[in-house]
Amino acid sequence: MDYTDPAVLTRLRRDLHGIPEPAWCEFQTTARVVDACEDIGVDTLHVGPQAVASDARMAVPDDDTLADWRATARDAGVDEALLDSMAGGHTGAIAVLDRGEGPTVGLRVDIDALHITESEADDHHPAAAGFRSEHDGCMHACGHDGHATIGVGVLAAVADSDFQGTLKVVFQPAEERAGGGKPIAESGHLDDVDYLYAVHLGLDHPTGEVVAGVDGFLAVSHLRADFTGTGAHAGSHPEDGRNAIQAMATAIQNLHAIPRHDGGATRVNAGRAGGGTAPNIVPDSAFLEGEVRGETTALMEYMKSHADRVVRSAAEMHDCTVETATEGQAPSAESDRELAACFGAVAADRAGVDSVLDSDALGGSEDATYLMRRVQNTGGMACYVCVGTDHPGGHHTPTFDVDEQSLRIGVGALTTAITRVAETRP
Amino acid sequence: MDYTDPAVLTRLRRDLHGIPEPAWCEFQTTARVVDACEDIGVDTLHVGPQAVASDARMAVPDDDTLADWRATARDAGVDEALLDSMAGGHTGAIAVLDRGEGPTVGLRVDIDALHITESEADDHHPAAAGFRSEHDGCMHACGHDGHATIGVGVLAAVADSDFQGTLKVVFQPAEERAGGGKPIAESGHLDDVDYLYAVHLGLDHPTGEVVAGVDGFLAVSHLRADFTGTGAHAGSHPEDGRNAIQAMATAIQNLHAIPRHDGGATRVNAGRAGGGTAPNIVPDSAFLEGEVRGETTALMEYMKSHADRVVRSAAEMHDCTVETATEGQAPSAESDRELAACFGAVAADRAGVDSVLDSDALGGSEDATYLMRRVQNTGGMACYVCVGTDHPGGHHTPTFDVDEQSLRIGVGALTTAITRVAETRP
Amino acid sequence: MDYTDPAVLTRLRRDLHGIPEPAWCEFQTTARVVDACEDIGVDTLHVGPQAVASDARMAVPDDDTLADWRATARDAGVDEALLDSMAGGHTGAIAVLDRGEGPTVGLRVDIDALHITESEADDHHPAAAGFRSEHDGCMHACGHDGHATIGVGVLAAVADSDFQGTLKVVFQPAEERAGGGKPIAESGHLDDVDYLYAVHLGLDHPTGEVVAGVDGFLAVSHLRADFTGTGAHAGSHPEDGRNAIQAMATAIQNLHAIPRHDGGATRVNAGRAGGGTAPNIVPDSAFLEGEVRGETTALMEYMKSHADRVVRSAAEMHDCTVETATEGQAPSAESDRELAACFGAVAADRAGVDSVLDSDALGGSEDATYLMRRVQNTGGMACYVCVGTDHPGGHHTPTFDVDEQSLRIGVGALTTAITRVAETRP
Amino acid sequence: MDYTDPAVLTRLRRDLHGIPEPAWCEFQTTARVVDACEDIGVDTLHVGPQAVASDARMAVPDDDTLADWRATARDAGVDEALLDSMAGGHTGAIAVLDRGEGPTVGLRVDIDALHITESEADDHHPAAAGFRSEHDGCMHACGHDGHATIGVGVLAAVADSDFQGTLKVVFQPAEERAGGGKPIAESGHLDDVDYLYAVHLGLDHPTGEVVAGVDGFLAVSHLRADFTGTGAHAGSHPEDGRNAIQAMATAIQNLHAIPRHDGGATRVNAGRAGGGTAPNIVPDSAFLEGEVRGETTALMEYMKSHADRVVRSAAEMHDCTVETATEGQAPSAESDRELAACFGAVAADRAGVDSVLDSDALGGSEDATYLMRRVQNTGGMACYVCVGTDHPGGHHTPTFDVDEQSLRIGVGALTTAITRVAETRP
Repeated sequence: MDYTDPAVLTRLRRDLHGIPEPAWCEFQTTARVVDACEDIGVDTLHVGPQAVASDARMAVPDDDTLADWRATARDAGVDEALLDSMAGGHTGAIAVLDRGEGPTVGLRVDIDALHITESEADDHHPAAAGFRSEHDGCMHACGHDGHATIGVGVLAAVADSDFQGTLKVVFQPAEERAGGGKPIAESGHLDDVDYLYAVHLGLDHPTGEVVAGVDGFLAVSHLRADFTGTGAHAGSHPEDGRNAIQAMATAIQNLHAIPRHDGGATRVNAGRAGGGTAPNIVPDSAFLEGEVRGETTALMEYMKSHADRVVRSAAEMHDCTVETATEGQAPSAESDRELAACFGAVAADRAGVDSVLDSDALGGSEDATYLMRRVQNTGGMACYVCVGTDHPGGHHTPTFDVDEQSLRIGVGALTTAITRVAETRP
Repeated sequence: MDYTDPAVLTRLRRDLHGIPEPAWCEFQTTARVVDACEDIGVDTLHVGPQAVASDARMAVPDDDTLADWRATARDAGVDEALLDSMAGGHTGAIAVLDRGEGPTVGLRVDIDALHITESEADDHHPAAAGFRSEHDGCMHACGHDGHATIGVGVLAAVADSDFQGTLKVVFQPAEERAGGGKPIAESGHLDDVDYLYAVHLGLDHPTGEVVAGVDGFLAVSHLRADFTGTGAHAGSHPEDGRNAIQAMATAIQNLHAIPRHDGGATRVNAGRAGGGTAPNIVPDSAFLEGEVRGETTALMEYMKSHADRVVRSAAEMHDCTVETATEGQAPSAESDRELAACFGAVAADRAGVDSVLDSDALGGSEDATYLMRRVQNTGGMACYVCVGTDHPGGHHTPTFDVDEQSLRIGVGALTTAITRVAETRP
Repeated sequence: MDYTDPAVLTRLRRDLHGIPEPAWCEFQTTARVVDACEDIGVDTLHVGPQAVASDARMAVPDDDTLADWRATARDAGVDEALLDSMAGGHTGAIAVLDRGEGPTVGLRVDIDALHITESEADDHHPAAAGFRSEHDGCMHACGHDGHATIGVGVLAAVADSDFQGTLKVVFQPAEERAGGGKPIAESGHLDDVDYLYAVHLGLDHPTGEVVAGVDGFLAVSHLRADFTGTGAHAGSHPEDGRNAIQAMATAIQNLHAIPRHDGGATRVNAGRAGGGTAPNIVPDSAFLEGEVRGETTALMEYMKSHADRVVRSAAEMHDCTVETATEGQAPSAESDRELAACFGAVAADRAGVDSVLDSDALGGSEDATYLMRRVQNTGGMACYVCVGTDHPGGHHTPTFDVDEQSLRIGVGALTTAITRVAETRP
Repeated sequence: MDYTDPAVLTRLRRDLHGIPEPAWCEFQTTARVVDACEDIGVDTLHVGPQAVASDARMAVPDDDTLADWRATARDAGVDEALLDSMAGGHTGAIAVLDRGEGPTVGLRVDIDALHITESEADDHHPAAAGFRSEHDGCMHACGHDGHATIGVGVLAAVADSDFQGTLKVVFQPAEERAGGGKPIAESGHLDDVDYLYAVHLGLDHPTGEVVAGVDGFLAVSHLRADFTGTGAHAGSHPEDGRNAIQAMATAIQNLHAIPRHDGGATRVNAGRAGGGTAPNIVPDSAFLEGEVRGETTALMEYMKSHADRVVRSAAEMHDCTVETATEGQAPSAESDRELAACFGAVAADRAGVDSVLDSDALGGSEDATYLMRRVQNTGGMACYVCVGTDHPGGHHTPTFDVDEQSLRIGVGALTTAITRVAETRP
């Protein structure tokens, strides 16, 4: 397959769109990417525990979930040996092109999907064109299918160029859970990177618009709380119960009521919750998964410390116990303006690019910030790039889709920036 | 098999204990009972839609759940034709012995289990003796395995006697969800019953104690609320969300705070709840399953009308919509004292019965009340009987178990009461 | 004044009705009672710290409130010396008639009023007849004006009789706050009482009906919680605040949601709450006054321990501190059936008494229970009597009123029971 | 008195500090200001309904409160005729200096105080120096005593200068309640103003720092909700109650949980709340005073519409009714950068001014925005100026105080800007 061919890239994106997989379960996706990298002929391919610092992974699902997704991948024909190399949820890959002396450039793309059921509406292009998600309840609703495709496309195009230096393309798992950035950062693979790009499609920017240097990442922390009470027959002995669902509900109400902060934007969300077994049993267990964010890492920590207190007090209120865990986290970060300027200048000249914005605030979170900070802390520069794409539905909604024109634009701008890095670098 | 043999009954009870099935999924249990009835040689056996008024069923699970339990039963060797007769969750059976002229006596036993994971502790007898639940997360934690066994035992013993009249033994599904009483009552099979007994083991009474006429049933109604909001990215556009989990939490908090009532005992429990998909998505859906009870049907209705208002207001509070459904219900009822007195007199003479209590308040709910009221309204009498059993853990807890001695006591007392009904009846 | 004259008693009741005073502020009421006792010529009159165990008083208002009510009493012409004897909120009185050898009989009446604004409606008799409350926001909405009048009437009638023995009439303050029963009990004045009567008008019984032995007192405890947080400008520095009103609101929601108890009736009420200073300031303080009750003292203690935990956790939830206090309390108690039977027999013969009920459950609380238990614990008997009265509005509502016929009935029945105690006593 | 003398101004500020009065109750403060204006010899003095559009006033307290503060002012010696002119809470004044042809310049200062009890600590200067608040529970904790003093100082200095044009100094009431801005704007007095200055001390800027053009005003709306339920005896008939305090608590919890908004900063505060009458009565009424804010008027409206829904749903949840009112409001606004630049240039040259900031975000609200928008909409320019002052405690806290040096700095900078307006104006 010739991954420098736009039509081939479109097919790849559609293939990936059809097989969305959640955090640390990207077995089939990784296999598809690995296959492409091998086709391209990369010099080194890190997969499994070689690609990530295993212990730094967050939000790894339980064994049953991993086993289910692995089985799905196997049923779809993924090679057992490759699956073995990803055992225990070590998905993702880092592909390296080694082209002699020259700067080391990194490109980070993320590959995981969301627990959203994709639209079946006639005007939803993936449904109409037959490449809608084959995995019920899971969907690429944030464009990571496109990101992975751009990563492959850039690899192929740079491989095909006279680039001098080293290119490392990181196919990162578990971005949606803020669980994959830290283990990639801590893998050490980025420590020699001079220039790191991370790329995202859309973000409310139309096709033809490029943002050279996204900022305003909200620091984020995902928390999970497991409440344990005591069951009882709700009719005959309600007083014997310690109601874990009441504890959970009290926590939810009060989490959302954490005071706003004058220092900047904060966020809180109790995104998933559940508990109990039957209407007539006082529930002895309940859980809560949520997140807090802050415009700065300090603001996120402010929210996190309040959230911890709320959860603990809610448990105590109903005489329950609670265990809490951090299930994903990402700091805030800033794009280096010099690198952003270089990218902007290159991008402005590309066909299909109508306008280049200097910067824009994301207003969301991204664990690419771990990678950016790692590179910045080891003396390199980092820049987060947005490639606009017309998207009919919002990110994280059932009708999200990308304009496939933007794949070509993204591959082109990034490839040019990378191959001309020697002359354009700051 | 000789179901008049106590050892055979004990084996039956252990078989049933190992295959607990929840409401309307009692495929394997019904099959085991049907098998026993056929062994005994009953005259008529109503199964499937013949046994219950199909439309009056409440708390029928969704098709996937039914299919899963049906598959489990099939895998365990249950006959396909029998399974077909129970299609769509028409479990349970009514066995009829027709022995000529004489009164028509009914006996109601319930057969469903609970969503509780059974204890694996060494001092939990079913675990130690090897007949612990084979169905993960499901358990006979309220003795219905024993109730079904008593039903079979009484059938066998009466069949073996010189009883003159008709005996109908109702193996009722879905008692735990208060979903099976109404469809049995509305089936019409009880309309010619002169004397109805319902039986329960335990209820904090020790082996050797019998209660001739339990009362104090709390009327109960199970409610389900499904909240629908609007999803949104919790970081970048929280204001676009309409948070279904916040609605659910507000409902839970305020349900438990419905005012107590001077007219008698009331209960409320939010027993099961859940919602959302991921920490970073404003949850667009959530649900709540709970129950209200009252010492009288009017008190239950008081709680129900408050609960309805709470749920609706909670949805409106967070700009969500809500759909509510009644998923199970049972009125209050009273045992007829004359029938209870007759049963008490008979029971007192039985071996193994140390003491007979005139009456006791259940303090819980039971949809046998639908059957009792049906019989009473068509001119018959009804009596709810408790056969004490030493139970190490409380009802509806993972260590509940029954003393198998009580099976023999229950069969004996009920059989005597039934076979001597002509002479002892009020 | 001749307090054996029904017309004089009616005038006394109306006088008292016009000057309602809340707990421990009954300066004018006590003065009016003292005046009557002196007219009657009692042998001993205990007022102030002689009548109550000062330290055992609960719910004593702050100095400003005491000073205000004292000033009102002084302005109305109450003697300064008498006011001095009641300094610091030592209201109430115990009047003793010493008539030689014979049993010691006690009669307890309560004298305080409620913080309710009396109706001005034309069909509200006190308003129409011109003896409506002169104290804005305060009202005799539970008949204590009538109770005090009955106390005076019985004193006068017994003084006028040939009774042999000792009569002690206790005019108890602060019943509505459950603050006066304990200090009366601990005063020691009841330790030689052989037979104690406590009396209440109404309780949904019509004129002509008498209840000889009220039971079913709910044990009660009044709690006050003062939350302290940290103020902040709500616009510019919300994060600096620790919101005491949020703590209060969380406590209120969760107090009402304390699990019901299978052991019997429980109650909870957050009856008064407040806090904060301005819309734009994060509130640094808030308070809550509420109560819990139980059908038994143990059930009240169950509620109290849950309430304590709820209040503490709510404070912690919002990083506030909290101080709690018990502001009133009363145990449950039972009337002695033998004494009740004697009273019932006597009452049945009285003119105006149409029916005598053996017993009735109050369904509310009463700190007469402290006095009853004291007498019972020192070897005497106690009986709580209800004298029915047609009351247009419910107790504790703005349109409550008593049928003044019932004053005569109450005085008559109690006087007869007391004067004939030697012959009728159990 | 010579109000161009700094020592006299300091005395004036201390006088005003000692007599803090809340919104629309600034009788004594207005009188003191009027007295100074007369001393200075202004040309016109608008007081009472002449100064404000009476119907546009918000947050006017009830008649009793107005009467109390009027009585306090009268007792302090304020002239009855002047008090009559302010009858019904028409406080505040507009003083006009008419000095011939030339531009019309406005200066707005606010004069009301807060419901905060001033610190008595030794290190709190007003306490140590003997000019602490004489009005218990009321305090100038936001520097409005200084603002009024600056207004008088500027009037005196400009009167003493060769200024050509018209100067209007607005002494605005009720800023803290956002109740006075709108009625001043709608009075029409500002419609011919070419340049409007509003001034504030402190805001975390030290003495010597001046901000030429404050921005970032949060739009604000104050809401009041009055919940009405049904009272009942909490022990004997809890089911008859409709608990207004539960409605209030539910509203408080859910108000604070209104979703944050990606469009900018929002705020919410339930600043004052209360209800109920006694622990044993189900509360039939409760109230809530709070506010919402937004970085833009649209964001404030977003919060307001959510808050309205929360309050209504909370009432419905507990079967209560609710009446809501907007008790104060202010839009957002922007300083004109040209006018700000002119002021900055002038201020930089003044003695005592160490640094001039171009702009700063307030992060709070101010109803000067109504005046600014009015002037801007009628063709003029407006600039909000901050004069730094060392303040030991934060704004709206009991230890707030101003460095009196800043009074002279403020008077100097504003006077120069006004008197040199002809040459410096944009």
